[in-house]
Amino acid sequence: MAELVGNVLVGQSGGPTSVINASVAGIIAEALNHECIEEIYGSLNGVLGILHEDLVDLAAESQQQIRALKHTPGAALGTCRYKLKKQADFERVLEVFKTHNIRYFFYIGGNDSQDTADKISKLAAEQGYELRVIGVPKTIDNDLAVTDHCPGYGSVIKYLATTVREVACDSEAMGQGDLVSIIEVMGRSAGWIAAGAALAKRRDHPHDPPHLILLPEVSFNQEKVLEDIRRVLKRERFCSIVVAEGLVDADGNYVAADGKTDAFGHAQLGGAGDALAEIIETNLPGVKVRVAKPGLMQRAAAHAASKTDVDEAYLAGQAAVQAAVRGETDKMVTLLRGDADQYTCETGLAPLSEIANGVKKLPREWINEDGVSMNFQFLRYAQPLIQGETTLPHENGLPVYARLDKVRVEKTLPAYGIGE
Amino acid sequence: MAELVGNVLVGQSGGPTSVINASVAGIIAEALNHECIEEIYGSLNGVLGILHEDLVDLAAESQQQIRALKHTPGAALGTCRYKLKKQADFERVLEVFKTHNIRYFFYIGGNDSQDTADKISKLAAEQGYELRVIGVPKTIDNDLAVTDHCPGYGSVIKYLATTVREVACDSEAMGQGDLVSIIEVMGRSAGWIAAGAALAKRRDHPHDPPHLILLPEVSFNQEKVLEDIRRVLKRERFCSIVVAEGLVDADGNYVAADGKTDAFGHAQLGGAGDALAEIIETNLPGVKVRVAKPGLMQRAAAHAASKTDVDEAYLAGQAAVQAAVRGETDKMVTLLRGDADQYTCETGLAPLSEIANGVKKLPREWINEDGVSMNFQFLRYAQPLIQGETTLPHENGLPVYARLDKVRVEKTLPAYGIGE
Repeated sequence: MAELVGNVLVGQSGGPTSVINASVAGIIAEALNHECIEEIYGSLNGVLGILHEDLVDLAAESQQQIRALKHTPGAALGTCRYKLKKQADFERVLEVFKTHNIRYFFYIGGNDSQDTADKISKLAAEQGYELRVIGVPKTIDNDLAVTDHCPGYGSVIKYLATTVREVACDSEAMGQGDLVSIIEVMGRSAGWIAAGAALAKRRDHPHDPPHLILLPEVSFNQEKVLEDIRRVLKRERFCSIVVAEGLVDADGNYVAADGKTDAFGHAQLGGAGDALAEIIETNLPGVKVRVAKPGLMQRAAAHAASKTDVDEAYLAGQAAVQAAVRGETDKMVTLLRGDADQYTCETGLAPLSEIANGVKKLPREWINEDGVSMNFQFLRYAQPLIQGETTLPHENGLPVYARLDKVRVEKTLPAYGIGE
Repeated sequence: MAELVGNVLVGQSGGPTSVINASVAGIIAEALNHECIEEIYGSLNGVLGILHEDLVDLAAESQQQIRALKHTPGAALGTCRYKLKKQADFERVLEVFKTHNIRYFFYIGGNDSQDTADKISKLAAEQGYELRVIGVPKTIDNDLAVTDHCPGYGSVIKYLATTVREVACDSEAMGQGDLVSIIEVMGRSAGWIAAGAALAKRRDHPHDPPHLILLPEVSFNQEKVLEDIRRVLKRERFCSIVVAEGLVDADGNYVAADGKTDAFGHAQLGGAGDALAEIIETNLPGVKVRVAKPGLMQRAAAHAASKTDVDEAYLAGQAAVQAAVRGETDKMVTLLRGDADQYTCETGLAPLSEIANGVKKLPREWINEDGVSMNFQFLRYAQPLIQGETTLPHENGLPVYARLDKVRVEKTLPAYGIGE
């Protein structure tokens, strides 16, 4: 494979995580190692930044900030949910790439983002523009195909399992047999995140909190859940419940407090915890219910990130650059788990199209027969992902997070009208 | 003062905090230093445990567990919201004390708990039963009189300021000028907790998140808040809001989503965030709103506790024992701030009655004229309280918290019927 000399462009897409910036840091650090790479650019707000030619010079950032990126939540380059729709969008992307001699494109994101990367890659090939496109996985939802797990997942479940354990200390102290504590977590279509809360249980202590995990994979049966709660209250004097926002009933309808829909007629989620609270208060008189809804907190909680997760996100960024430099393209970096008892993780590659069109479901056989707890297969899978704590620099009692200078790369193209 | 030989009883009362167990640890550790103290008992669930003679032998706990108590959230002895009402209750308390030769009573709690301790102390004096009663301050609400601040407060605001900073990283990444992120925090009648979120701002960066802090002290003016939000969205492309659950309008009514009342006709709180979201969505079309409601998480987040707070809670426990041994009674330990520029803190004592009947309000002059941010006087007050991080022991990727054996002290009295 002939050496390809040119510039790097990195972009972030979709919902931020605690570790998506660690992948950017890995890409930058690795790119500096290769002489075929000349400039290291970032696009602001994912593909939007490409369309608008909003590029920044990442090599101009201080080493300090790049190091701090490794533990900074959010998405330092900005992200977007914009989907390239029409041919003109894709043509514009290539035009921008050609103008700035982008030869290496790294896109960090989930399914949709990898689909976008795939299409850009194929168009470049069609047009004979030599471009190497490598995707870097990112999603707290842990639903990307092929890869064993996704950077971002380990940190969100470490934070939530910690939280479940802590709130249980509080509820246990108050518990007089009448306290139900609900934590509503993210997860619209899959229970990966809610399931991760099961790690709060100590080994061989099945009665530890969380007492009930309500997953989108198990349709909500009001009578059964109320019976489960009664039983737990009797045994433990309080009941700790983790519920996924995407909980659905037997008819596939979201269990949500108000049934409101958004501007597009989609059911508005986020009300499963409140809905459940209402059901409990109505049907179990005298029982007090407390609902916590961490919302965006859970995917931004870098102060409680998993070191394993941070390191793997960084590694995935490095691996993307290495793969591209050695000639790979149209692939996404995957995480591969070793076969040994002791957890090991290395990176692999999979075609972007396989990622774009696949979804990894939470295996039904990892859920216990009771429908509200996880078995040893899940625990064996998830346990290694939350190992290790990060040490954040603090100033005045608070973590210090990176702030990029975002030195703009000069625009040379006419403005582009999105959606015109 | 003649040496008083006898047993110690310690109890916890009211809502748990991240550091209330640190005070128990301080009491136990200090009690071991004094030969006049024979047994060290704990009452389960505060005064309820005294009425029911549910006492545990704290000297039987391992040193390991007592050490772990220092960083364990919740209330390891259990807590209660029960208020001693009738004379018979107080008589029963003294009967239990006499039976178990309790000569030192340490009660860790807020106003109501100190009131209870005061009444017990006075009744013992009336009956000529020699008893030394020392209260230990505890409340995330930071509203106890006389003491400069309350153990529990520093940790809740450190956690929330960290959270505001993290969620802002997330929101900034998504922000296209149309994202409002709301965090609803505790604080029914005072804004101490919400105000603490102001620490998330870096020094000399008044435009840092949180952009708006909505306090119970400043009545909610819908038009002004909407105008504030518009202005921030234009300037920052996202808007970070911290709202106290006890936000009220100009008529003194709670700003809450549904106006539901509980069984006693009290307005149910906890809906200020959702109510605000609805107001924004209705009045600012196209603006997306995300609400996070940490609920019990905020007062249990020992993994992000303030070391200063933990140390002071422990110190307050030690000081309580020292004061009692040297003959003090009917007092609460207070925290005194030194006058020097460099923050120092030592303990003092104040009469229980002064604590029971006072409330410390958030000074109006510490709120900026804009009504939505805090000035340097507040920051100078709060900043030292969040300094330092604790290092928790972890196992399998999660913090390990104390679990007491709770070896029961044999009951010798007939059962007592509460409320009979």
